[in-house]
Amino acid sequence: MSIKDNWINFIQQLQDDICVALEQADGKAKFTEDAWQRPQGGGGKTRVIANGKVFEKGGVNTSVVWGEVTEPMRTQLRIPHLGGEAAWFACGLSLVIHPFNPFVPTVHCNYRMFELYDDKNSTSIPPSGGSGARWFGGGTDLTPYYLFEEDAKHFHQTYKDACDAFEPSFYPKFKKECDNYFVNTHRNNERRGIGGIFYDYQKPTEDKDVNFWMNFAKACGYAFIDSYIPIVEKRKQTAFTPEHKHWQEIRRGRYTEFNLVHDRGTIFGLKTNGRIESILMSLPPTVRFEYNYQPQPGTEEDKLLQACLHPKEYV
Amino acid sequence: MSIKDNWINFIQQLQDDICVALEQADGKAKFTEDAWQRPQGGGGKTRVIANGKVFEKGGVNTSVVWGEVTEPMRTQLRIPHLGGEAAWFACGLSLVIHPFNPFVPTVHCNYRMFELYDDKNSTSIPPSGGSGARWFGGGTDLTPYYLFEEDAKHFHQTYKDACDAFEPSFYPKFKKECDNYFVNTHRNNERRGIGGIFYDYQKPTEDKDVNFWMNFAKACGYAFIDSYIPIVEKRKQTAFTPEHKHWQEIRRGRYTEFNLVHDRGTIFGLKTNGRIESILMSLPPTVRFEYNYQPQPGTEEDKLLQACLHPKEYV
Repeated sequence: MSIKDNWINFIQQLQDDICVALEQADGKAKFTEDAWQRPQGGGGKTRVIANGKVFEKGGVNTSVVWGEVTEPMRTQLRIPHLGGEAAWFACGLSLVIHPFNPFVPTVHCNYRMFELYDDKNSTSIPPSGGSGARWFGGGTDLTPYYLFEEDAKHFHQTYKDACDAFEPSFYPKFKKECDNYFVNTHRNNERRGIGGIFYDYQKPTEDKDVNFWMNFAKACGYAFIDSYIPIVEKRKQTAFTPEHKHWQEIRRGRYTEFNLVHDRGTIFGLKTNGRIESILMSLPPTVRFEYNYQPQPGTEEDKLLQACLHPKEYV
Repeated sequence: MSIKDNWINFIQQLQDDICVALEQADGKAKFTEDAWQRPQGGGGKTRVIANGKVFEKGGVNTSVVWGEVTEPMRTQLRIPHLGGEAAWFACGLSLVIHPFNPFVPTVHCNYRMFELYDDKNSTSIPPSGGSGARWFGGGTDLTPYYLFEEDAKHFHQTYKDACDAFEPSFYPKFKKECDNYFVNTHRNNERRGIGGIFYDYQKPTEDKDVNFWMNFAKACGYAFIDSYIPIVEKRKQTAFTPEHKHWQEIRRGRYTEFNLVHDRGTIFGLKTNGRIESILMSLPPTVRFEYNYQPQPGTEEDKLLQACLHPKEYV
């Protein structure tokens, strides 16, 4: 099987498996699927869940898309100056889950493979090779509204274990990249959550070949289930007050700000005519913006804020 | 009195007068003021209102600021290549009002004067002249959640009258600029509301001198009160259901998308270290993002959506 087919199969299997795991954790709502085609090449499967017992809004999306290299892509993807005939291929999974209960964290993950070709004629079908480049990217990050050290530890430990099986330097490096990526720079460098891992532009080498990066993505992709579902199970019954919900909605405001102002994937999608409803699926269901809202020092809300302002090591 | 002092006085008086008019219309809440200083030069007065009888969240802000011309400014303000010693001065009023009742529209307005100088040494105090350029910008736009033709007509007629007293070509031109500015290009060019007027980069000429543009801004600034308060008075008692409120929050989502993704002023503020809480005061108090939400054809919700998709002439 070609690398490309292998990757597509993995992504689609991961989508199926994650949806099953999330439906089980929810116990009520089911995902519904919108399959879509992209006129310029490819398409995707957007699966959304809404108003469940646990999950208020969420999406687990995959796409397999290709096309000619356009100007905004050259700029944003930091692609070296390719000729006018260049083409690209991308396939990935992207998910965002917004639980109703403020004690259950929001989570996001994304795993993708990207290929570039010299020749646009290879785009009529998913191109099968060519002289271009290939790279991998991905990551998972957690956005709690209240910080439970044991949950943060469990989440990070799961990714550390997944990383360590491949390369001991990965977890510290990718954890730091994650802390440096999901940042509201306009909010005093406040992070949107407590991080996880994030890697991008990973090109296969002799030492770490295509199979290495495919297997790494598979390990991290499935680690999502192990990292997140136990936290959902532990917290989903926790009683909460309107004040807890209020704080969750304030923090969801910060999530919205990050996604619309800073997130490369979102901005790229909005500027390149992506499928808007699939891209903006990531936005939280209900959000609150209040002027100059500040939690009281020493409260649980402030504890979470401090963890977002000053990322730390949980494992 | 210098042009600059004259402008500053006008802006601060307008802030006072608008706040009084809005407090009277609300009947309960009062504005509170945060005065702030900008370390690099100048400061502002942020006045916010929240949880009133009519107004759920709003701000009427003024600022008088100056500094050296930085790289992001050169880019975003389309400033011709000025020397490294260039300086700028800006003073304006910006307001956004989000009413609680979905039958009362949201409104935004902004009036500003900008000056550029060759010499940064003129920034230690508000610079008093110099060989640079000066321009004016402003506008007011209405974002209803339900479309009442008579309200739309009243709003636009008020601005047409204000414009016509200066120059008959202004209203059609600035109305079109407004329709072309407040656009969610990523949403099939859906406008955030039903427009109003918008003008920018208006440099005084022999024909239309500084006084002309100052007086035009004054007329438009005070037209805000005449254009908006009567609509508030007419609609503020209208009974509404949770379904009306739901639709308002969906539309507020589009408002949030426009402000964070497209609005030049917001993006400029976020990138140039502006006072974040004053800039993001514009975001609605409660917002809802639902996957692929579409109003039913023929409903009042759809009628509003169509008016946003296809701007029309109300007067």
